[in-house]
Amino acid sequence: MTEALTALKKRLADILALQQAGAVLGWDQQTYMPPGATEARARQLAVLGRLSHDMFVADEIGALIDKAGAELNGAGYESDDASLVRVAKRDYEQQRKLPSEFVEEMTRLTTLAYDVWARARANNDFKGFAPLLEQIMDLKRQEAAYRGGGAHPYDALIDTYEPGTKTADVAAMFADLRRELVPLVAAIRERLDRVDDAPLHQDFDPAKQRAFAEMVIQRFGFDFNRGRQDPTVHPFCTSFSRDDVRITTRFDPKWLNPALFGTLHETGHGLYEQGSGEALEGTVLSGGTSLGVHESQSRLWENIVGRSRGFWSCFYPQLQETFPAQLGNVSLDAFYRAINKVSPSFIRVEADEVTYNLHIMIRFEIETDLLAGKVKVADLPELWNTKYQEYLGITPPTDTLGVLQDVHWSSGLVGYFPTYSMGNLLSAQLYEKAVAAHPSIPDDMARGEFGLLLNWMRENIHQYGRKFEPKELIERATGEPMQARSYMKYLKAKYGEIYGV
Amino acid sequence: MTEALTALKKRLADILALQQAGAVLGWDQQTYMPPGATEARARQLAVLGRLSHDMFVADEIGALIDKAGAELNGAGYESDDASLVRVAKRDYEQQRKLPSEFVEEMTRLTTLAYDVWARARANNDFKGFAPLLEQIMDLKRQEAAYRGGGAHPYDALIDTYEPGTKTADVAAMFADLRRELVPLVAAIRERLDRVDDAPLHQDFDPAKQRAFAEMVIQRFGFDFNRGRQDPTVHPFCTSFSRDDVRITTRFDPKWLNPALFGTLHETGHGLYEQGSGEALEGTVLSGGTSLGVHESQSRLWENIVGRSRGFWSCFYPQLQETFPAQLGNVSLDAFYRAINKVSPSFIRVEADEVTYNLHIMIRFEIETDLLAGKVKVADLPELWNTKYQEYLGITPPTDTLGVLQDVHWSSGLVGYFPTYSMGNLLSAQLYEKAVAAHPSIPDDMARGEFGLLLNWMRENIHQYGRKFEPKELIERATGEPMQARSYMKYLKAKYGEIYGV
Repeated sequence: MTEALTALKKRLADILALQQAGAVLGWDQQTYMPPGATEARARQLAVLGRLSHDMFVADEIGALIDKAGAELNGAGYESDDASLVRVAKRDYEQQRKLPSEFVEEMTRLTTLAYDVWARARANNDFKGFAPLLEQIMDLKRQEAAYRGGGAHPYDALIDTYEPGTKTADVAAMFADLRRELVPLVAAIRERLDRVDDAPLHQDFDPAKQRAFAEMVIQRFGFDFNRGRQDPTVHPFCTSFSRDDVRITTRFDPKWLNPALFGTLHETGHGLYEQGSGEALEGTVLSGGTSLGVHESQSRLWENIVGRSRGFWSCFYPQLQETFPAQLGNVSLDAFYRAINKVSPSFIRVEADEVTYNLHIMIRFEIETDLLAGKVKVADLPELWNTKYQEYLGITPPTDTLGVLQDVHWSSGLVGYFPTYSMGNLLSAQLYEKAVAAHPSIPDDMARGEFGLLLNWMRENIHQYGRKFEPKELIERATGEPMQARSYMKYLKAKYGEIYGV
Repeated sequence: MTEALTALKKRLADILALQQAGAVLGWDQQTYMPPGATEARARQLAVLGRLSHDMFVADEIGALIDKAGAELNGAGYESDDASLVRVAKRDYEQQRKLPSEFVEEMTRLTTLAYDVWARARANNDFKGFAPLLEQIMDLKRQEAAYRGGGAHPYDALIDTYEPGTKTADVAAMFADLRRELVPLVAAIRERLDRVDDAPLHQDFDPAKQRAFAEMVIQRFGFDFNRGRQDPTVHPFCTSFSRDDVRITTRFDPKWLNPALFGTLHETGHGLYEQGSGEALEGTVLSGGTSLGVHESQSRLWENIVGRSRGFWSCFYPQLQETFPAQLGNVSLDAFYRAINKVSPSFIRVEADEVTYNLHIMIRFEIETDLLAGKVKVADLPELWNTKYQEYLGITPPTDTLGVLQDVHWSSGLVGYFPTYSMGNLLSAQLYEKAVAAHPSIPDDMARGEFGLLLNWMRENIHQYGRKFEPKELIERATGEPMQARSYMKYLKAKYGEIYGV
């Protein structure tokens, strides 16, 4: 007697397949697609987006969700079926708020805008991108109005990335962080010369960078039978199923960090996707529950593992063997300090752990004001540079190194940035708990073993896919809500030692 | 007053976008997809295939086609609108014959079978592939029954690749070819030692092979702004629009031919797709009109151009510069003879021009009998080897080099092979006509100029897309139906000179 549930699952599987096809087209667009294909790809993505949206918001789906709910007959809250109906209902109610033409227009515009942004960034031409950014912001305001709810139009947008989170929560989080971060940064700023990262700025053959990084992530547990890595402009992770997870990176032949730590970062996302419960595959429950939780996994493997002394005590000899001329005479300690150098810098994705959240605060402040109409697109470059001067003490020399650096706005991702900081907080909170459960984790890491850590994440986070909302999931895994304490403790211990503060 | 026509175009554009998305997923599957993703990809392709089929065969589309036809109001037969309605009607009638569940099952099965075939070929394991081939043949018999028409079930299948062509036509074509080919092959067989192709079997760095071939195809006119080349197992060309044409090839580090001539071959297909009329983009009229005509373009650039003395008199010095150790002491004449060596061989895609059609004849004979139930799948390896002994005087030592070599059957492509021979015939017929219009073409080629030849193909073939059926198109372009005369004349002149027969 689960007719409606079966019918619902079949419908949702079709819709998911269209979305996954769209993800393949998006991956291709950012990796291998020839430039002349931009318009055709925009059309194709628009059609896929519109059809999957139309199929999902159909009245029939709503009726099936209700009937399927009635068929559950006391199946427990945590059961796959009850969870599927619950999550489908939430998604359905969210999606019903947006008209199909609106979704199609958003897809069309952002697909075009991606290309325009990439050229604008390459040519330091903010004015070339500005008209599209204005159109995107208009649509985002319209989207916030359609979605409704919240004291600030931004509430409705952030909720799509981090269900249950409000603008006020984010403002409070940054207030918490600021209180402890500002004195820490101030103390470190007086001792910036204690760390030299010159060894990281040498000639590093990209092919060797790639081979080393892929060796490492295989040790982490990234399954190349169910995933791969490709080069792109702006690194990302996408998945077309738990068995097809694509990470991307970019190689700088004169700087080790972007590809190396970029790969570890995207691998964190990839491990989450590959670890999504097998029984959830092909359903609305597959994948990650929110961007913040996703980011907790990427920051865990990039920073807490990948920038730790223990990790490098195991892997540094192999890196030295890979680049003997560049690193043969650089000690493990000097290397460890170099990769953890704190330095106010222009580019977010290359920022150190201590200043990183300041980059996010700037974007949060700008996009909330932009959305509220308090600032104009034309004024962004100046506003951006003013804030960088204020928070980081530096002024970007070009818009390419400033307001044009991030892909997000060109893709219509407004309200997305705060999830990066939430991810930082959660990475430390989850790691602390995993170590409490398995005290050998730090020693394992120094032997190149990551099984207990990955398994703890698999069991407490990955396997649940989208079953639980982020707040629920974090409380189940750690016994408390998201907090800044663990992260600040981690930062203070690590950077206190490195900088002697 | 073209309401129905406008509505029809919009519907068909949506359907085309789904098909193009499917083509992207197919390309990805054969180039970069990780092996573990096979099942998920099969599901995704099945959904895309079913949805696009359902959308196309809907009663509403039939009604729109009829209404749009009434709105044409005397628009000429050659006009874009009249052609669109005519071609859509033919496609619609064809597609209506197949139930949606059937199409979905075919897509699911062949997507899985591709993977099984690739493994079976790698492991010389025909038995591993046989059960899937049996299921595919069952479905093809069912498809022939659904489509109906013709004296032989094979008629209905070949018609999907080469509209208007019957099994009897193909049998007659092979009879024509056989009459002249057999004496030619017999004469050459007595002088096989006159040509030595050892220079082609040396170490050739794949990266340099790729760079040289891509330089050549750029000179042909392949537009890398609207296309690209990637490595794969079995080379193919696919397109997601006229502005996104993907060719693929495979590199043998010890043999020059596969990648070099494979690239020129797929480029011929690619030039046809890139040359499809701009006004036809995004409609059912875009692309190539049939496989035979498509193959005429690939064989033109691969053989008539790419294996000509004139072409190499221009490009051979550059190839020698690319591989000085391997080819520095090999004369142009010796190289020209080497790349045109006639030799009975196992692998179709590596066969010379003279014996190539014998490979096709074998496949045509086997698949017609297989479809008619006259032979069993289990008996194929033996039957295959017997025919190779009979026609080519050789017996494949493994199934990998025999019955497992081709991708076609695993993809459900039955009735496809004869179009290769039709393409050979047409390549010579069209080239003869182009040279009659522009007598400087052979001399241009020897100067590395291909503009007049490409433009003649653009004007007489490419620009029309699917507007005209193949027979119609060939008669318009050459003033006569497809014939074997031009091809045999070409072969006799070329190989008569090389082998002195």
